[in-house]
Amino acid sequence: MINRLAIIGVGLIGGSLALALKGKGAVNEVVGYSRSEDARQQALDLGIIDKAADSLAEAVSGADLVFVAVPMGAMNSVFEGIADYLSPEAIITDGGSAKAQVVAAAKQCLGEKFKQFVPGHPIAGTEKSGPSAAFPTLYEKHRIVLTPVSETDSAATAKVKAMWQLTGADVFEMNVEHHDTVLAATSHLPHVLAFNLVGMLAERNDCDEVLRYAAGGFRDFSRIASSDAVMWRDICLGNQDAILSLLEQYHQGIKQIEEAIRNQDGDYLIDVFSRAKKARDSRFADPNLIDNSEV
Amino acid sequence: MINRLAIIGVGLIGGSLALALKGKGAVNEVVGYSRSEDARQQALDLGIIDKAADSLAEAVSGADLVFVAVPMGAMNSVFEGIADYLSPEAIITDGGSAKAQVVAAAKQCLGEKFKQFVPGHPIAGTEKSGPSAAFPTLYEKHRIVLTPVSETDSAATAKVKAMWQLTGADVFEMNVEHHDTVLAATSHLPHVLAFNLVGMLAERNDCDEVLRYAAGGFRDFSRIASSDAVMWRDICLGNQDAILSLLEQYHQGIKQIEEAIRNQDGDYLIDVFSRAKKARDSRFADPNLIDNSEV
Repeated sequence: MINRLAIIGVGLIGGSLALALKGKGAVNEVVGYSRSEDARQQALDLGIIDKAADSLAEAVSGADLVFVAVPMGAMNSVFEGIADYLSPEAIITDGGSAKAQVVAAAKQCLGEKFKQFVPGHPIAGTEKSGPSAAFPTLYEKHRIVLTPVSETDSAATAKVKAMWQLTGADVFEMNVEHHDTVLAATSHLPHVLAFNLVGMLAERNDCDEVLRYAAGGFRDFSRIASSDAVMWRDICLGNQDAILSLLEQYHQGIKQIEEAIRNQDGDYLIDVFSRAKKARDSRFADPNLIDNSEV
Repeated sequence: MINRLAIIGVGLIGGSLALALKGKGAVNEVVGYSRSEDARQQALDLGIIDKAADSLAEAVSGADLVFVAVPMGAMNSVFEGIADYLSPEAIITDGGSAKAQVVAAAKQCLGEKFKQFVPGHPIAGTEKSGPSAAFPTLYEKHRIVLTPVSETDSAATAKVKAMWQLTGADVFEMNVEHHDTVLAATSHLPHVLAFNLVGMLAERNDCDEVLRYAAGGFRDFSRIASSDAVMWRDICLGNQDAILSLLEQYHQGIKQIEEAIRNQDGDYLIDVFSRAKKARDSRFADPNLIDNSEV
């Protein structure tokens, strides 16, 4: 049971956790803080938080659990802003999509309270953002990865794990570097690829007409290009090494496909396309999950 | 009203047209041909066709409308195989995803009947294939592009247009080159990008584990990588120039994003990501259409 939960960032990620825990009766009071007064008011109006704090200090004072759910570029200043106001027993966790940068920022800012910081990443979300995008079932059947480091107190990790399990999520532990590579491959790189394609089409004079003929395949492929630009800027900058290394590998693959198209090497294309199809089908085998191809 | 409809290729595209026209009572008899005896039998069993032909010659004999719905690499041999057996008044159309190559093949093979050939492209489909993937409402509210050339008889175009309208589709005309560029941008290029990403992940030793952490964004982005490898090989080879030119442009964009990540140039990333988001949101504004982001 959490007595006082502080949510820093009351958008999709923070708001959905608050709603889920409230729905389970697992929290007495939720205090929320956002730099945006509008977002704070909206979160209050939507019943996501019980009290809007006017400052980071006020938000975390007396909180036994603090969830930092801001774009990664703002993590450092949030840690700086809360460090002196945390209760001695407070546990801090976050929702950042790449962990090395967040862990470094927490270590630098939180001092001896760093051992009570449990780095986390809920692998859930939609392309929407803000308090109005939050909903209590966002995390149900989704994966939450915790990446405790050597300093992390195991009791703190257990408490954060139990909190996430209440939302209906499956909680896993992973080391920081492995997490950042896996997520670069399955999330960060796809986002970059989709942003780049849609950005390129947006520059065409005939963009509107071109997109008029885009069907279900394009719609699904490009959905992630509707994601929040600030959030994804921060992820790209925060997980720089893993993303750049995968982009290089990706480019090698594209070069070989280009060569095959240029040389009319159909066998090569069949080989790549078949392997991709097989891997994709084996991960998403349930037809109910993928039969969403209508425009 | 079509008296005898010949479907060459009884998979998702051909089968769905047959089912739609039968559902509207718009056809007296559907004769189907496939190189695969299994597919012919399946199409019969599923009620997609009334009669399975043993040869291309038999399939088109006496047909007043012939729909060629085979992978693009097989178009040439189908045109060769049917040319001598077409009724004088028969109208021929196709479902190929790139038009220049199909038009060239038809022109070479069909002789004086080329004027009765109406190049077409139904912009619809799923990642499934084969007769069992066909369903009668596939084309409802989808776009069908016809790309008649200077030789094409306008009465033939009108008849093909009327046929597609019966399926509930919106029918548009476009010239061949423009079609091939537009589709390279919104369909062929995204398929190559998705195949390449999933193919690259499939090569990793930890592929299964990596994909276990793939969430809704990846699922949607990669859905098209479940598409039929032969079909997409043929499209890549058949629309070579447009695809290679767009790949080059795509790569320039990626290089700039890479540079921005390397130089921690957040402003550049915000600019690209925001433009992409804006273009994507304006095309798919209905939230009901895109809110499918759960795993």
